[in-house]
This record gives sequence, structure tokens and C-alpha cells, in this order.
Amino acid sequence: MAKPGKIPGSAEDVEAAYYEAIASNDVDALMALWADDDDIVCVHPGATRLIGHAAIRASWVEVFERGGVRLAPTLLHVNQNMMSAVHSVLEEVRTPGQEPQDLHIVATNVYLKTPVGWRIVMHHASVAPGQAPASAPSGTVLH
Amino acid sequence: MAKPGKIPGSAEDVEAAYYEAIASNDVDALMALWADDDDIVCVHPGATRLIGHAAIRASWVEVFERGGVRLAPTLLHVNQNMMSAVHSVLEEVRTPGQEPQDLHIVATNVYLKTPVGWRIVMHHASVAPGQAPASAPSGTVLH
Repeated sequence: MAKPGKIPGSAEDVEAAYYEAIASNDVDALMALWADDDDIVCVHPGATRLIGHAAIRASWVEVFERGGVRLAPTLLHVNQNMMSAVHSVLEEVRTPGQEPQDLHIVATNVYLKTPVGWRIVMHHASVAPGQAPASAPSGTVLH
Repeated sequence: MAKPGKIPGSAEDVEAAYYEAIASNDVDALMALWADDDDIVCVHPGATRLIGHAAIRASWVEVFERGGVRLAPTLLHVNQNMMSAVHSVLEEVRTPGQEPQDLHIVATNVYLKTPVGWRIVMHHASVAPGQAPASAPSGTVLH
């Protein structure tokens, strides 16, 4: 359930709280950041889509029960208007004590402005080869 | 470049035109559907993100030069407000004369309402195992 008093204001704030909730394996904090709407969608890397709170919550419980994930979000790219914010984030996957993995995660996080503030309506993550680029200017990926 | 006179009105119309442009290997028609904004983002399956018209156009030219792709979009799921539309689409990959592949593509297409109408600002596609589910109600994917 949403906790309006505890969630800060901007889409960036919600995103920071999102990665903090993942880092602390806190499914209640994580789910409070999603829109109170059964049309929300979550796509985990290599998986099909999940729709609605029950399915999305169950998937994160499963992730956290397996020990969670250590993600380092980086290189945020934003396309925003007054009522929506489309964030593209590159996530490095970190395992303490191990070398960085030769892959990174590309995540799309979409926020809509709801009556109780900015909330997540879509998280789509997929795996890409190689470490996250140090920067990703136009055209450099293909050439 | 955008061709305002040739692009129909709703986000659904733009999406239909998008898959039609892919089916006909028409990179000009495809790129006209994107917002005239260098913040647009495209993530192809298994790849990192591309930002801006030049990189995105080059990637589709490459796809079309390899013979293109035959996608059958299905099971659209929508989260929309007045200024943005977040579409989740399952795409079957079809190769004429061959059995359906045992995978499907999950695509997120985000449209924003721009001064010249609805335009794509984000396409994120990733591969999921198995054929596209016949339907995807809440909770059925995990259980």
C-alpha cells in the first residue's frame, strides 16, 4: 500500500527510494513506490511481463529470498513532461568480493504523476553484454 | 523527419504504423514516428541502449539490411494519461515456412503527446523464453 507521507516528491526521489528498497531487500518499501493501479507492469531480465501488484510483489519476494541483488544504477537518461517521466538506467550488477561481471542491465523505469505523487507504473529490465559503458553518447554503441 | 500529415492520431495508431514500418523494412516511415527529440531511447533485445535519432536509425538500417524481422504484436497492455501512453506488447517472432520459435519478445513502447501529436520516445525490447502466453492475467506467470 502507498504511504504518501513517507515518499518524497520527484520521480528521481522515487527512483532513489526504489534502488534503496532493492538494496535492503524491503518488499514493502519497494511496492509502496508503485502506482496503486492493477495496470502496473514489471519485466525482469530474461522473463516475460508481470502485470499487477500481486504478481510483481511475488516476483520480488522470490528475488529477495534468493539473497537479493546488488545493483549500482548509473547513467540515468530522462525524457519527461509534466505528467510522466521515462527513465533509462544502466545497472551494474555487483557481487561483493568478486570481479565485476561482464554484463550490465538496461532498465526502463516509467513514472506517472498520480493523485498521491509520482509513482512507478513500468519497470523493464534486460541484460546487455559487456560492462556498463562509461558514457553512452549517440552512435557510439553500434560503431 | 516527422511527416505530420501522414501520421494518424492516437498512440495506438502510431503503434500500428510502427509495426507496419518494421514489417515493410521502411526506415523513413519508422523514424518519422519517433519524437523529434534527441532524448529518444531504443533498446534492442540483448543489446545496450541507443540514444538519439542517428544511433537508432543506424540500428534499424542494420536490422533491415539483415533481412528485417517478422513480428506479430499481441496482447497489448496500456497505462495511459492525457500526455503519455505506456504500452506493453508481446511480440511473436515469425519466420515464414518455419515452426514458431520457442521464445517471444516483450516490448515496452512509451509515447508522449508532442506538439505534432503522439510520438514514440522509448522502445525497449527483450527476449523471454517460451511462446507468447495466450493471455497474461495478473499472477499467472509466476504460479
